[in-house]
Amino acid sequence: MQKLTLVKVGGKVVEESDSLQDLLNRFSQLEGLKVLVHGGGRSATAMAERLGIETKMVDGRRITDQAMLEVVTMVYGGLVNKNIVAQLQASGINAIGLTGADLNYMQAVKRPVKDIDYGFVGDVVAVHVDELKLLVEKNVVPVLAPLTHDKKGQLLNTNADTIAAEAAIGFSRYFEVELVYCFEKPGVLENADDDYSVIQSLNHAGFKALQVSGAIHTGMIPKLDNSFNAISKGVHQVRITNIEGLQKGGTTLVGD
Amino acid sequence: MQKLTLVKVGGKVVEESDSLQDLLNRFSQLEGLKVLVHGGGRSATAMAERLGIETKMVDGRRITDQAMLEVVTMVYGGLVNKNIVAQLQASGINAIGLTGADLNYMQAVKRPVKDIDYGFVGDVVAVHVDELKLLVEKNVVPVLAPLTHDKKGQLLNTNADTIAAEAAIGFSRYFEVELVYCFEKPGVLENADDDYSVIQSLNHAGFKALQVSGAIHTGMIPKLDNSFNAISKGVHQVRITNIEGLQKGGTTLVGD
Repeated sequence: MQKLTLVKVGGKVVEESDSLQDLLNRFSQLEGLKVLVHGGGRSATAMAERLGIETKMVDGRRITDQAMLEVVTMVYGGLVNKNIVAQLQASGINAIGLTGADLNYMQAVKRPVKDIDYGFVGDVVAVHVDELKLLVEKNVVPVLAPLTHDKKGQLLNTNADTIAAEAAIGFSRYFEVELVYCFEKPGVLENADDDYSVIQSLNHAGFKALQVSGAIHTGMIPKLDNSFNAISKGVHQVRITNIEGLQKGGTTLVGD
Repeated sequence: MQKLTLVKVGGKVVEESDSLQDLLNRFSQLEGLKVLVHGGGRSATAMAERLGIETKMVDGRRITDQAMLEVVTMVYGGLVNKNIVAQLQASGINAIGLTGADLNYMQAVKRPVKDIDYGFVGDVVAVHVDELKLLVEKNVVPVLAPLTHDKKGQLLNTNADTIAAEAAIGFSRYFEVELVYCFEKPGVLENADDDYSVIQSLNHAGFKALQVSGAIHTGMIPKLDNSFNAISKGVHQVRITNIEGLQKGGTTLVGD
């Protein structure tokens, strides 16, 4: 099987032009087939504020009413995505920017309302990467925005970490996939205050133990849940690292 | 050669949900391979106004400074494009939304400043439809936003009629292309005030004669220039019509 590297970038990395440029340079140098997934929450919050739309978050997740859906569609699908694509093209990478509606590659359902009404937030139900595979094999690099659709005409806001994990699982049918979560920290830390305490390798049992002991930062938990879920569904390897560790480094998550 | 129908829609048609739905229903029913090109100027102007950005037009063309480029990138590349894609997917059409930066399918240069500085407006210099051809042959329907790039990282605003003509020329290498300009009027009118005065067929000499006599509405002239240019460069046929005439009807432009 051919290798494919799927890199998820988010947070400040992708929203400040200096760090974005650094990231794209490093990403361009990665060998072989690759896919980029980006966030853009800070830009969406900033644009919402300019439009007088209040941002409401619950447990780090954005409440997405109709007005906020328009903002994230514009910012994730347009502003952030197309600027990344244009910059990758300038580096000689044949990028293509997509939401889940494009090629119907990622279908979701609007999250059912239980305690909290998240609004137009999508939980992924199906991934179709057949046409994307054709493009990837021609050295095209998909750039995936954190948006899905319900196949009934409704766009939905879906967390970029989830998009990355689901796309990685989808591509695992055709490729040996390494999923790399690239964020501000150099990896999963044994001590959240010590950037030198990177855990080199972590299996699911180890993750659960760290979770029980309270050592893992709350924000890390969904990322690790996504990661181990991806591994259990065929993704070859998951790494969690920062820009500097894109090529190698950080925490490698492994199956049990 | 296989036939391909490339439909350009703009103006109110694409920006009001009722007429957009009607258009997409009719477009879905067109047989064979197809491509959709959309505008979105009214939405861009409305969004700019909400953001306190002034819209300046010269001869119907938008002056695109940095702030306005962000607006059109968001609105054309995100809001309008992705909503059309999601709605086409709901009609069972496997759509994919693209700007010229995606797959580097349409490259442009920033328009040189002569009398007027149009800002980040792109004049098309190269069209690459090789990867798009692969997708189109798999019944994927590209949905093209009026944005290009300079392959140096800069997105550019390019008139949707021009995008349509240039894409039609590009696809003519592989397909027998019919380009359909779909707008508010039923065709090219002999008398601008009489919707029943549609000219059925027009060649370049006839167009020039109407231009000299002043019969043709000023707004029509760039559309017709684009059309005859497209025909001279290999596009099989161009039609100018409204939603009702999408399947057949309107004014057919022919080579000399």
